[in-house]
This record gives sequence, structure tokens and C-alpha cells, in this order.
Amino acid sequence: MIRIGVVGYGYWGPNMVRNFAEAPGAAVSYVSDLNEKKLELARRRYPAIKTTTDYTDVLADTDIDAVVIATPVSTHFDIAMRALRAGKHVLVEKPMTTTSKQAIELIEQADKYKQVLAVDHTFVYTGAVRKIQELVASNALGDIYYYDSVRINLGLFQHDVNVIWDLAVHDLAIMDYTMKLRPRAVSAIGVSHVPGKPEDVAYLTLFFDGALIAHIHINWLSPVKIRRTIIGGSSKMLIYDDLEPSEKIKIYDSGITMSNGDENRHNLLIDYRTGDMLAPQLKLTEALSVEAQHFIRCIEEGEKSLIDGEAGLRVVRMLEAANESMANYGKVVELNIKR
Amino acid sequence: MIRIGVVGYGYWGPNMVRNFAEAPGAAVSYVSDLNEKKLELARRRYPAIKTTTDYTDVLADTDIDAVVIATPVSTHFDIAMRALRAGKHVLVEKPMTTTSKQAIELIEQADKYKQVLAVDHTFVYTGAVRKIQELVASNALGDIYYYDSVRINLGLFQHDVNVIWDLAVHDLAIMDYTMKLRPRAVSAIGVSHVPGKPEDVAYLTLFFDGALIAHIHINWLSPVKIRRTIIGGSSKMLIYDDLEPSEKIKIYDSGITMSNGDENRHNLLIDYRTGDMLAPQLKLTEALSVEAQHFIRCIEEGEKSLIDGEAGLRVVRMLEAANESMANYGKVVELNIKR
Amino acid sequence: MIRIGVVGYGYWGPNMVRNFAEAPGAAVSYVSDLNEKKLELARRRYPAIKTTTDYTDVLADTDIDAVVIATPVSTHFDIAMRALRAGKHVLVEKPMTTTSKQAIELIEQADKYKQVLAVDHTFVYTGAVRKIQELVASNALGDIYYYDSVRINLGLFQHDVNVIWDLAVHDLAIMDYTMKLRPRAVSAIGVSHVPGKPEDVAYLTLFFDGALIAHIHINWLSPVKIRRTIIGGSSKMLIYDDLEPSEKIKIYDSGITMSNGDENRHNLLIDYRTGDMLAPQLKLTEALSVEAQHFIRCIEEGEKSLIDGEAGLRVVRMLEAANESMANYGKVVELNIKR
Amino acid sequence: MIRIGVVGYGYWGPNMVRNFAEAPGAAVSYVSDLNEKKLELARRRYPAIKTTTDYTDVLADTDIDAVVIATPVSTHFDIAMRALRAGKHVLVEKPMTTTSKQAIELIEQADKYKQVLAVDHTFVYTGAVRKIQELVASNALGDIYYYDSVRINLGLFQHDVNVIWDLAVHDLAIMDYTMKLRPRAVSAIGVSHVPGKPEDVAYLTLFFDGALIAHIHINWLSPVKIRRTIIGGSSKMLIYDDLEPSEKIKIYDSGITMSNGDENRHNLLIDYRTGDMLAPQLKLTEALSVEAQHFIRCIEEGEKSLIDGEAGLRVVRMLEAANESMANYGKVVELNIKR
Repeated sequence: MIRIGVVGYGYWGPNMVRNFAEAPGAAVSYVSDLNEKKLELARRRYPAIKTTTDYTDVLADTDIDAVVIATPVSTHFDIAMRALRAGKHVLVEKPMTTTSKQAIELIEQADKYKQVLAVDHTFVYTGAVRKIQELVASNALGDIYYYDSVRINLGLFQHDVNVIWDLAVHDLAIMDYTMKLRPRAVSAIGVSHVPGKPEDVAYLTLFFDGALIAHIHINWLSPVKIRRTIIGGSSKMLIYDDLEPSEKIKIYDSGITMSNGDENRHNLLIDYRTGDMLAPQLKLTEALSVEAQHFIRCIEEGEKSLIDGEAGLRVVRMLEAANESMANYGKVVELNIKR
Repeated sequence: MIRIGVVGYGYWGPNMVRNFAEAPGAAVSYVSDLNEKKLELARRRYPAIKTTTDYTDVLADTDIDAVVIATPVSTHFDIAMRALRAGKHVLVEKPMTTTSKQAIELIEQADKYKQVLAVDHTFVYTGAVRKIQELVASNALGDIYYYDSVRINLGLFQHDVNVIWDLAVHDLAIMDYTMKLRPRAVSAIGVSHVPGKPEDVAYLTLFFDGALIAHIHINWLSPVKIRRTIIGGSSKMLIYDDLEPSEKIKIYDSGITMSNGDENRHNLLIDYRTGDMLAPQLKLTEALSVEAQHFIRCIEEGEKSLIDGEAGLRVVRMLEAANESMANYGKVVELNIKR
Repeated sequence: MIRIGVVGYGYWGPNMVRNFAEAPGAAVSYVSDLNEKKLELARRRYPAIKTTTDYTDVLADTDIDAVVIATPVSTHFDIAMRALRAGKHVLVEKPMTTTSKQAIELIEQADKYKQVLAVDHTFVYTGAVRKIQELVASNALGDIYYYDSVRINLGLFQHDVNVIWDLAVHDLAIMDYTMKLRPRAVSAIGVSHVPGKPEDVAYLTLFFDGALIAHIHINWLSPVKIRRTIIGGSSKMLIYDDLEPSEKIKIYDSGITMSNGDENRHNLLIDYRTGDMLAPQLKLTEALSVEAQHFIRCIEEGEKSLIDGEAGLRVVRMLEAANESMANYGKVVELNIKR
Repeated sequence: MIRIGVVGYGYWGPNMVRNFAEAPGAAVSYVSDLNEKKLELARRRYPAIKTTTDYTDVLADTDIDAVVIATPVSTHFDIAMRALRAGKHVLVEKPMTTTSKQAIELIEQADKYKQVLAVDHTFVYTGAVRKIQELVASNALGDIYYYDSVRINLGLFQHDVNVIWDLAVHDLAIMDYTMKLRPRAVSAIGVSHVPGKPEDVAYLTLFFDGALIAHIHINWLSPVKIRRTIIGGSSKMLIYDDLEPSEKIKIYDSGITMSNGDENRHNLLIDYRTGDMLAPQLKLTEALSVEAQHFIRCIEEGEKSLIDGEAGLRVVRMLEAANESMANYGKVVELNIKR
């Protein structure tokens, strides 16, 4: 039985508690939050769980095997480092940290004693994103031409992070998991419309070797909610619309076919293909439930998580570069993810 | 009776002929095209119209008052300049020319003898774009925060122009007509996925003074067709979806309201508003028909066209700057539209 | 403080418990269910609530003021009658009873000692249905021409009730609340595609005095889920799509205008109007929460519920008549709701 | 070369002329219409075509091989009978005639001299309806459970025919072509909301042997346009949405699976299946063009049309029965199509 302590019982923490409470082989023993009222809620729902306003109580509890961190991003590094040093396995909400330097330190600390360090890139555990990863990995789409995502809505302004760190982080996590290539450089343009607040509308471009390009539109000021990713490949193209209740993934047997014309070999002929569209059935299991079970198995079997510190670091590095580019009017920032 | 000659009877020319043929006060007398088969089609539909494979015949015909140019963009300048010099009024398809220098020369030539020089920014004559212009002009949307457009489909590759010149030109024309502000600089990123062919996927950003930002996604390699513009304002927001059969414009009484908190005057409070959505009835008259009648009236009354050479020039200047930026990895290019 | 006992903790019961637990002025004290495992769930979530497998324990508890019945329809009458006789106020799930005779007996029993008898027509408490009721009541739609509803999905076959009793009951409850007129007669056609099971596809027509007609399509064998009601009026028309996340009600300023032609007074001229479409903002409070508070206030103030036994009876009478008609190949069955 | 005369140049006639003019092996030689202005239009577009206001001129022209009749339904019988007697092959718009008696007379007349008698059930020649027919014929859907169609819009009131004859005729023609079974009886309910005008809202039910049921909702007073047919089968289900620009047919691998439970063989277990959805690519050729070529080939090779007089008769018989049922409050009317 893996005993879990959850730090942070605000928006996301209750989902973590619920999913770990229901996961076979695990139990949630301790919950901490700065807000006593939140803890009151937790106790009412789960009378057997201990609560505290001081998260170091959780780390000091020798019964606890692993700590789930669902607090504001600026606190991730401190809590995660202390948890690792206290010998706990760690699952930390995304983005992993506020700097890549912090992410590297956490990875190194976890590696020292082979503790599990996992980052909560939740979408990676959905049936839809799993399907995309399979299609790309099996070359069903052919060479990937572009990855275009729109993630916009009338959204809660965050005080501490901009719209890229709030929303694009999902796309970067999905892209990092599904694409075979890693981006080489980043360009970002963003605008703030509320004095003193972070950017609320932004456009993020990622450059890869070859002709692949990725682009993400994120926006807290949209009258409608859109969650739509288009991935164009040389063989097929797909649309992933997370708001569709049942047909989240549509695969189009459409594209272009190139051939050399007879008369002039310098002149490529381009043929258009439009064909069937298939919306494959997707697994409907709640992503967080899959993720919780995966985290527990990693602990039990001493394995790395599918989304380990390295994955978390790659995403943080992209976010960092995006901020640097945005401060410089869209200047292209190389990623240099190697360390 | 204004007598019209139409140069170019390919994709768009027949629409021009049909609309001018039906416009009160005008008659189409002459059609030219390099392809004799196209002329055969024209004669079969309009037996009374003269045809020629040499457009200079049209210019030499003293009965002709005005020339409509519906040929590839690289030929616009020559044909338009000769037509102006031959004393004809000119309506030229968009983009007006391949360089802003050419556009300026045409404007100067037309100004000399007060000839009408109009550019065919067709969408400006639709009920939907008229409504947007009214809403912006009357401040119904408040301050404009952003203009975001997606214009993508599995599209015909052009041989001579890239996807920005083919598709974004529509958005630039609409934006130029509806926004009160003029863009200050442009950044564009684009990729070609077919060796030797122009860019087929591109992202265009336009910077304005203040916090307004415009962004256009154009793509010839999309499995689905999307034509959707979102305009966010401080009072209201609207969505213009040109593929909607009846509700092309939706106006959302949504947004954010800022107020100073009592305790800390540095701390802005942000409230979200969501309210009614209104899809106003739009005029359904075919845009080209409105445009043809407007062009005729300008000739009759010696007035400037709503979309005159200056409007055409502004759009060409943006396209030119987009190409320059795209060649330099998204470098910001100032517009300096003054001349 | 009104003390509530809930009988039935299956699909709907937990929603009842949650909403009454959160309603000011009320507390859920007792829950009964035949299934001990369900009670285990209830105790885990609400440790303070007493549980029992014998609902008569709830009725015998003198602390309990009101009983909420969320059990299969065949048991409603017995439980409700015993609860009323035990002096409890009653809120019973829809459909109220299996026969109109039973419904009448419950009404008479409740009237005797002025107990509150309410039927859980949940949709009536949504912002969308409230808005429809207002629009009809204020004559904003003009004379109502038709009420057409489609409520279909790949649905759980019920063992004891057919698709009309399972799904159309919602439409009948909404219609009963929003329309000013009462239906005069019913015709129903239905088919069962699984031997020995109740009808899974059915069409229900309701006739009113005048030209109003209502029609409901219900179906457990549809590949897609649809919840869409169209109400046509002489002034305006509306569409209520319950699956729309934000624009559930759309009001169209469309219709026909009749006038007498000048020359021939027997010849009505019909003009078509299409105009603006408005999607009004709706209250988003959870319907069951509104309903729970309304039920509590009725008890506190000794008032009739908005959806009292009479409303429940009218719907049961329509369902009864639908079954009779369906057994007779769509024969028109008069309603004679008077008693 | 088959020489065609077209009688009627109103709404549909020009489409007929255009498609026969472009069909290989055919030429349109003569057009008649009572309205001289319509003929003026025809002459302007097709200078080589003869025109007349007296359709008997067309029948008297010995150069004419076949007559296409695109006039109001009440005139179909007379014109078609005279055309057949004049030795012409006939293609008549739907509905074929106003009575089944008339349809039978036309069939008998055409059979006498083996003239081609075809009825213009245009939708049968679309890629979408062809695909449905293939899927049903190959048993890909399994046993058909139901056929449900909604065909509504804010429509032009017809003076002479009700909404069933105007709109449901399309569904009946599609159903007659795609279903293997023939309906046994009809029930229809309809209402008129304009004094003195025909029914503008109607519901039509068709009964078959076995559990198949068909239902059609037609409405001239709907604020939105819907063209959607759902066909449920024991193996798969499909949705045909004629307003979808590209995915008109969606095939769902969804349904129910029945098996006998082990313990109690009287108790069927029902399992739900949801699976992939496939939108197959459809042929995009204009239906009327396919139909024109088919009609010409039938004449050239002396064959029956796919949609011959018998198909036209079956649809007229259903329309007739619908009128009879509607006049009797939905009474079930047997079809007895045999003759």
C-alpha cells in the first residue's frame, strides 16, 4: 500500500485526492493546505485523512511514501526538493518549476536515490492524446508538417503567470509526448490588456529541424472556448477537438501527393487527395485515474515515470524561452535543452 | 451607360462580367483572355460581347470607359498602367500589385487626371464586413484588444504567390477597412512543405500602437476549411464565421471589467462578464454586385472609391513586409506606409 | 431547520442528498436504500447521516419533516402515501406515479392536512426553461404554432418503463410548465426492437384546441445524443438545445406575416421575415439546488409547490394516454384531465 | 444525339436545361414556358434553343426525342400523357402526378410502346443516397430498425400542395430507393397555421412488416434549416446530413448486442456498443448531371430508368395515403400498392 500525502487542496488538489483515494494499492493519508477552510472540506469528505496547514508535517510523517504537489508554481521547487530530501517520491503539478535550473536540480536530487519524480502532464493520460501518440509513432500520418493548436476562452486571469504558462503548457506537454522531434527554437508574441497584469493573449511558434512547425494560440479574452489542435502530415491529417463530447479525434485521409511531371522534371505536380474521415473510438477512463495508477506502479517497481523530470524540464525550458522571446518582441530563442 | 472591358476570364473574371452585366447603368462590351477557349465560353453566355486574346485591343477601344483587371497579380501593374494611360477608369483585383512602388505609381497616374482607381477587396462589400465596420466605428466593441483570424483549407497551391499573398490578403483588406488604427509593423513566419514551391503554412502578426494586436493563420494544408475571425474589445467581442450559412456575425456581451479595489489602489480587480449573444441580420446582397454598382457610381460622380489605390497600397505594403519578415525568420518589419 | 429523509440512493438519490445537504435551512438526516453497498457510499460521504435498508424507519423517525422519494416509479405511490400518512411532506421523482388514479389519491391525501406534495420535474428549475416560460407568458413569441422536441441517444434500456415514460416525461413536464394551453388529446406510435422489452423508439403527438400541435421524438437507439426543442410562434421562434454549453436558448426574430392583398380579400399574402437572433444569458444555478430551496420554502411557508401534485398528475395522465394510444396503433386518446 | 424539349422554365427547369445541355449525347432544342419573360432568359443564355409559350409546339416537333416536364404537379399528368402519345420519352418532376390512378395510366401508356418514363427523384442520384443504398443492400447496417428524417426550414408556402407533397416527397423517394422493404401503411398528422392555406407542419409515419418504422418531420415554419436522416440498424447506424459541406454521411459502429443470460434464458441481456465513426468519401458529381446521363442511356439502350413510373407511383401512393390520413386525424391508411 503506497501512502500518499497531498500538498495543496485548492482547485486541482481535490481531484488528486479523489483519484489516489480510489486507486488500487494506494491510500491518501495526509492533506495540507494553508487555508483551514479547504482542510475542513477535505475532512468532511474524507474523515479518515489527517490534515495540516503546515506541509512540512506531511514530509515529516514517516508513513508517507509519496507526495503530490498541487500548489502555485512558484512553490513547486521548494516543496518538491524538501520532499525528495525527506525520501518521498514526488508527483508535481505542471509546470514543474519556474526555471529550468530548478528542474535540473530536482532531477539530479531524485536520481541520486532513484526516487520517482513525475510531472502532472495530465492530458498525456487521456485516450485522445494516447491515440495521437500512436498515430505519430506508427507513421500513420507520414511526415509531420505542422502542429497547430488553439486554446482560448474567457479565462481567469492568473496573478503570477501569463497565459502561456497557464494554457500553452498543456499544448507543450502534449506536443512533447506525441511528436518524435524536439523543437530547436521558440518565438513568442504576447500582449497584456490589463495594466500590471501578465500577458493575456499570446502566440507561440516552435521551430524544428526540417519543415515541421508548431504554433499555439492562447487567449484569456476570447468570447468562446476553443480547444482544437490540427496536425498535418504527408499521409494523413488529424483534428483533436477536446470539447467534442464523443468524436475528439478525427483522422482525414486527405493531403497532397507530389509526382514529377513527364515533360519537365523540375516541375513537381501536386495532386490533392480527399478521402474518408475516421473518428476512432477512444478510451474514456479519466486521465488522472490512469496517471495515479501509473505513478503508483512506478513506485512499486522502481521505474521512471512516462512523464519524468526530463519531460517536465523540456516543457519548462520552452516556457522560459517563450518568456524571453516575448520580452524581445518575438526574437527567436534557441532551446539548447541539453544539460 | 458606363461601358466595361474585362481583362482576364479565368476564375474570377466570369463573376465580374456577370455582375457588371447585371448592374444598372453599365454594360460589358469587351472581354479579353489569353486562352481562346475561355473566350468561347464568354461568347456562348454573352453573344453580344466582343472578345480578344490581346488586351490592348480593349484599351484601344474608345467606347470602353473602364477596365476591370482579373489577371494574375504579376500582370496587374502593366495592364493597369496602360489602361490608365489610355484614359480608362480601373478596377483591379487584389492584391493590387506585386510591389508598393508599383502601387504608388498607379495612384499617381490616376490622380493626374482624376481617374477612378479601385481595388477589388471584395469582402469589404459583404453585409458581414459592413456590420463589423459599423460596430467598430460606433465604438460598440469599445477599445479593440485583438483581431485574430484563421483562414485555412486544403487549397490550391499557387505557383507564383505564397499562402500569405493568396489568403491573408483577404484578412488584411478586411482589417484595413474595419479597424480605425493602422498597423505599425509586421512579423511573419512561414514554411514550405513542397520543394521549390512557395510557403503553404504561415502565421502573420501585425503590431499597432497601443495594445491592439492582429494575427492571421493561413494554411493550404488543412484537412478542414475554417474562415473565422475573432475581434476582442473592451466592451464586446465578436466572431465572424464566413462559413456559417445564416449567423455569420455573433456579438458577445462578454469581457472583463476592471475596477480599483478599495484597500489597495495598486491592485486592479478584474470581473468577468458574460451576457447575451446577438447574431444581427445581415444584408445578403452579393458583394460583387454592390461593388460593381459602387464603382459605376464613382465613375459617374467623379468620386474616389471606398477602396481606392491608397487602400490597395496599404495592403500591398503589408504583404511586402510579410515576405521580408518571413525571409528573416519572423524579424519585425516596420511598415512606414507614408510616402 | 427542515429535516429531510431520502428514500432511494441509486442514480438520482445522491444528487438529492447533495443538494438538500447544501440548501440553507435544511439538513439530510436519514437515507434508505435496499442495497447496503449504496448506503455504505452514503455514509462514507456523509458520516453524520443515518442509514437504513428499510424505508419505513425513515417514516417512523419523528425528527424527519419531509421525505424525498428517488426510487423506481412502481414504488412511488406506496412510499409517498405512507409518508403523507406519517405526516411528512413529500417530494417524489417523476413520473409521479404509474396511474393517474394513484396521483389523484396522493393529491387528496396531501390536501387533507395541507402537506406539501411536490413532483421532481427538474428541468422546470433550469434557467433555460424559466426563460422559455417567461417568453411564452409575456407573449414575446406571439401565438404558439408548434412545440417540437427530439430527445434521443443510445440509452439504457429500462426494464419496467418504455422510452416514453423514461424520456418524454421530461418534455411533457417542460411543456406543461411553459405552455399556456393544456393538451386535449394524445396519439403515440412506438416500436420495440428487443423481444420482450418495452418500446425503444416512439413518436408522441399532443393535440390542443386551436392550431397548436406538440410532437416528441424519443429514442434509445440513436447513434448520437440530441436534446433539441423548437417552439414556433406567430411573432418569434426559439430553439432550446440543452447540449449547447452556453447558448442553450436562441430566439429568432423570424416568421411569417399575413396581410390581406388589396385586390382580392380572400387571398392572404404571406411575407417571410428573417431577423436578428438573440441568445439570452441564462441563470446557471443547478436546477436541483433551486428546486430543493423552493421545496423547503413551501414547507416553511405552507405554500403549494410550483410543481405540485396537479402538475404531476397532468403528466402521468399524458403518459397513460400515450400507452393506451401506442397499444392501439396511434389511436387518438382524449385526455379528460378534469377530475 | 438525343434531342430534348423542356416544358417549364421556372425554378427547376433552368437546372434541367443546363444539365441536359452539358450531357454528352444530348442537346436541348426546345424550351416552353407560359411566361414569355422566362423564355427571354432562356434565349439569352442559350441562343440556339427554340422557345414557345405553347408546350404542344414542343410535342409537335418531330425532331424532339424526349420531353422533360418541370411544371406544377397538377399539370404533370396531362403534359406527360400527351408527350407519350406524341411518341416522346418522358422525364417528369416529382411528385409524378396528383393521383395514383394517373400514375398508373402513364405507366400503362409508356409500356405500350416501350417508351422511357422516368421520374425526377433527384436525390437518388447523389453520392450520399447511393452510399446509403449500398450500405443497406450489403447488409452493412444489419436489420433496419428505423428511418427517421427531419426536413424543415422557413419555407415558401405552396399554394396548391401541402408541406408533405412539397418536402416529404424527397424523403419518400430516398426511402423507396434505399430500403429493401416497402411500407405497408401510413399515418400523417398535419396542421395549417394560415387560414385557407395547406398544412405547413406535418408528421408522417410509415409502417412496415416487422419492427421497421419510418418517420418524417416536415415543416415550413422552422427558424432553422435542418436536413437530417438517421437510420438505425442492428449492426450499425448512420446519419445523413445533407447540409454538411463535406461529411454528409457518418456511419457509427454503435448499437446494442443481445445475448441470453446464463441463469435465465428468458432474460435477454442487452449490451451497448459504441465504436468508430466513419465518414466515407462520397462522389461529388451533381445529381442532376448523373440523372440526365442515365435518362439518355435508357433511351439509347431501350432500358427502364432506375426511377421508373413504378417508383413514381409508389411515392404518389404514399402521398395520397398521407393526405387521407391527415384528413382523418392520423388514421392508419393501408397502402395496397399492388395494381
